[in-house]
Amino acid sequence: MTEVLSKQQTIELRKKHIGPSCKVFFAKDPIKIVRAKGQYMYDENNERYLDCINNVAHVGHSHPDVVKAAVKQMELLNTNSRFLHDNLVQYAQRLTATFPEQLAVCYFVNSGSEANDLALRLARQFTGHHDIITLDHAYHGHVTSLIDISPYKFHQLGEGGQKEFVHVAPPPDIYRGKYRENHPDPGAAYAEEVQTLIQEAHKKGHQIAAFIAESMQSCGGQVIPPAGYFQKVAQYVHNAGGVFIADEVQVGFGRVGEKFWAFQLQGEDFVPDIVTMGKPIGNGHPMSCVVTTREIAEAFGASGMEYFNTFGGNPVSCAVGLAVLDVIEKEDLRENAIRVGNYLMDLLKEQKEKHPLIGDIRGVGLFVGVDLVKNRERRTPATAEAQHVVHQLKEQNILLSADGPHKNVLKFKPPLCFSVEDSKFVVDKIDEILTALEKATGARVGNGNKEVVENGVCKRKAPRHSNGVPEQECVNGTGSYFAGTACGQESACHTDNHVVSCKRIRT
Amino acid sequence: MTEVLSKQQTIELRKKHIGPSCKVFFAKDPIKIVRAKGQYMYDENNERYLDCINNVAHVGHSHPDVVKAAVKQMELLNTNSRFLHDNLVQYAQRLTATFPEQLAVCYFVNSGSEANDLALRLARQFTGHHDIITLDHAYHGHVTSLIDISPYKFHQLGEGGQKEFVHVAPPPDIYRGKYRENHPDPGAAYAEEVQTLIQEAHKKGHQIAAFIAESMQSCGGQVIPPAGYFQKVAQYVHNAGGVFIADEVQVGFGRVGEKFWAFQLQGEDFVPDIVTMGKPIGNGHPMSCVVTTREIAEAFGASGMEYFNTFGGNPVSCAVGLAVLDVIEKEDLRENAIRVGNYLMDLLKEQKEKHPLIGDIRGVGLFVGVDLVKNRERRTPATAEAQHVVHQLKEQNILLSADGPHKNVLKFKPPLCFSVEDSKFVVDKIDEILTALEKATGARVGNGNKEVVENGVCKRKAPRHSNGVPEQECVNGTGSYFAGTACGQESACHTDNHVVSCKRIRT
Repeated sequence: MTEVLSKQQTIELRKKHIGPSCKVFFAKDPIKIVRAKGQYMYDENNERYLDCINNVAHVGHSHPDVVKAAVKQMELLNTNSRFLHDNLVQYAQRLTATFPEQLAVCYFVNSGSEANDLALRLARQFTGHHDIITLDHAYHGHVTSLIDISPYKFHQLGEGGQKEFVHVAPPPDIYRGKYRENHPDPGAAYAEEVQTLIQEAHKKGHQIAAFIAESMQSCGGQVIPPAGYFQKVAQYVHNAGGVFIADEVQVGFGRVGEKFWAFQLQGEDFVPDIVTMGKPIGNGHPMSCVVTTREIAEAFGASGMEYFNTFGGNPVSCAVGLAVLDVIEKEDLRENAIRVGNYLMDLLKEQKEKHPLIGDIRGVGLFVGVDLVKNRERRTPATAEAQHVVHQLKEQNILLSADGPHKNVLKFKPPLCFSVEDSKFVVDKIDEILTALEKATGARVGNGNKEVVENGVCKRKAPRHSNGVPEQECVNGTGSYFAGTACGQESACHTDNHVVSCKRIRT
Repeated sequence: MTEVLSKQQTIELRKKHIGPSCKVFFAKDPIKIVRAKGQYMYDENNERYLDCINNVAHVGHSHPDVVKAAVKQMELLNTNSRFLHDNLVQYAQRLTATFPEQLAVCYFVNSGSEANDLALRLARQFTGHHDIITLDHAYHGHVTSLIDISPYKFHQLGEGGQKEFVHVAPPPDIYRGKYRENHPDPGAAYAEEVQTLIQEAHKKGHQIAAFIAESMQSCGGQVIPPAGYFQKVAQYVHNAGGVFIADEVQVGFGRVGEKFWAFQLQGEDFVPDIVTMGKPIGNGHPMSCVVTTREIAEAFGASGMEYFNTFGGNPVSCAVGLAVLDVIEKEDLRENAIRVGNYLMDLLKEQKEKHPLIGDIRGVGLFVGVDLVKNRERRTPATAEAQHVVHQLKEQNILLSADGPHKNVLKFKPPLCFSVEDSKFVVDKIDEILTALEKATGARVGNGNKEVVENGVCKRKAPRHSNGVPEQECVNGTGSYFAGTACGQESACHTDNHVVSCKRIRT
């Protein structure tokens, strides 16, 4: 038996000994998982859950080849990279072979956060500059230096959250952003915004060390940058003496299918100066990497300061990393990502015809977002509705999440072994949930489901949740809105501009 | 066969694909290790090396119980802490049981660097202050925020390396520091230095968030703080509204034998507010932890910002952590640390009677330092001699390192299964090496081995190394000193005050 404590005991001990900032999914009724295989997780009662969100268990949970590689190496040796070891160099060779030629030098670390932090250090050492341009809503990690450049995090700190060396560019979101799908060249227009930021920084005597962006924004709302955007940004940033950091922590390693790295979707004429990777790299084993050019690596080395990472690049991590690369090839998981991803997108597009709540479907490979809206014309984020869908899916043993600045984008990022059957299963359930939701609110395609505002106060009711408990609270105001109860907040709180300040609580 | 590439191929690939800042031990003739067991490592020719330095392989390399625990859990499940899991809470319960009662809340992360960074975030959030007091020569990690508070690192950056929010206190080193063993109360005197720093910071309008120190300074030169020092520092820091962070990354987990944590050596009346741990925690598996009080954890949680660490606290890491704790108990490794550590100290003290190069022996359990000096009265660090010893030991298949601000302290921090036979073996070899060295330089106890200075220029010759290549270079000057060749630098370069700016190259 794999469960030692009762679920209640586990919850009690967690309350006692784990920092309250460490949240569980579905806090009111969290899930206890005791085993997992492929894209399926099993709770203590052997109930099976379909995992649509775990981009870490990249080649499938507990993949036997990966476990085997780890065990074999653990039994032999696990030590640091100050000793020579074949695994380290073989892995570096295999990994750099997935990149354009100039990206040839690796630094092995333990997490995406360590990777992004090191990327900033490399950039600053190489350029001699300090300032960073980041995208709004971006998340790059949990260490101090990365909270500083993650608007997704520092916006929560209110006034003073943004440091003077940080410059926030609008995300290249053609559905909800400043320049949309009807713009003749949104990529150029968004890049121009970066150029403007550079010029403003220069006026203040600041110098740009780096532009950093996920190759596709993940927590930021599954945003896929328009073609040509990165090329133009890189040009502006290079002209300013800075470097381009592509954060592939969430989106790399073949998730997009056709290409191994998401930045490659921009075309062969774009090559970042530094690429960071993490989550999927070890299928759950704590490991991560920064890849850069020889020129940047040598500038970093020229300081004379050693870079030593105790666990980074140890023989076990490298054995695991090699096994993950092997499985991606052996099981043709990139091809699967294309095939299943396309199928999932097609199913979802059919749903869009049917459900007014679906405002946009976007994705590449097995990185797919469903942007829920209360009103298709205004593209008002349907935040509470997205949370409702996620909770209802959980009741159906499907794990999905909603993210983005408005927490209204359903986010698919499953293990790459996800199947067409899994896709059909989850989309059918979403169909049922949206049908029920629209029936309750009377919305239909072409009609829109408007907010109800009386005397400037929002009377919109959140959808009823199965457990009937409050799910949302406006952090700028004092009231909460409860399932099936009117919010009572100033209506602006729920418009496009302000819903960003509403956050999910207790879930 | 465990070797795939020839050593030369491994070296070539490493040059090609691994950042040049990532150094190997003994760069001129690095060691390729293919397997390890207990305190022994084996190279590609099955040559056995005695490991006196690997404080990560805490319960012994490739310990079968630890491997078994990892495998068992890897086969079942490895996922994030947003799901409930028994391993996480059981491990948190076991770990916190090793601490005084108030240290009850855990945050699981992946490395000592992540732990120390999070400790700073906790301290700053709790106190609302920003400034940090750190000890000179301290090393707390490789991420940006920790380079900032690690003089061991930022001193290498020259002018401007020290940020205005960082205050550097003298390390409580009673052998080489400001207040020595003949001072009536060096603990109080060193603590007073911290109080002075606080007062100076206040005058400038700065507020102290935390004092951070390793419970014993490791890279800083195996410095063991005098009794009462931490109590007094904590009192001053608390009065200033700050917290006390004990960094146990290198020294925790029973290495000191009698106590589980090195800070406990100061007495039961001292309890830090935050403790960080790392290296030995998973016997090489990348994992780490921050333990703090409920009060600090709640203040951190009150910001509303989630703390999520992708790999931190995953079921595999926790299974490994539990197994390490089990082995420490089952094999009575703390008792072994006391017994073997005392034996090692006794042997080394005998050597001190015999060899003028040995200035000081200090240690607790299996954390032992041998401070080599060129002159016992002046305590002039014998940097080149220490490097010579380390290189000669390597030729005898013994792995030891020299550290401290002058790189002259031989540093013992072996796996806790280190034996009396191992101790005898290494000390006998050190005896032989020192005997030969002293014979070559004519030094004997009571005579001292002075520097040779002519017209202000140092004529001291570095000891001859087996490979006859340059080992040392003065980074402040232009010249190098080669094995058996006079340095030619200004003599001040090699005195107590300036030798810190000499660094080892190519090794």
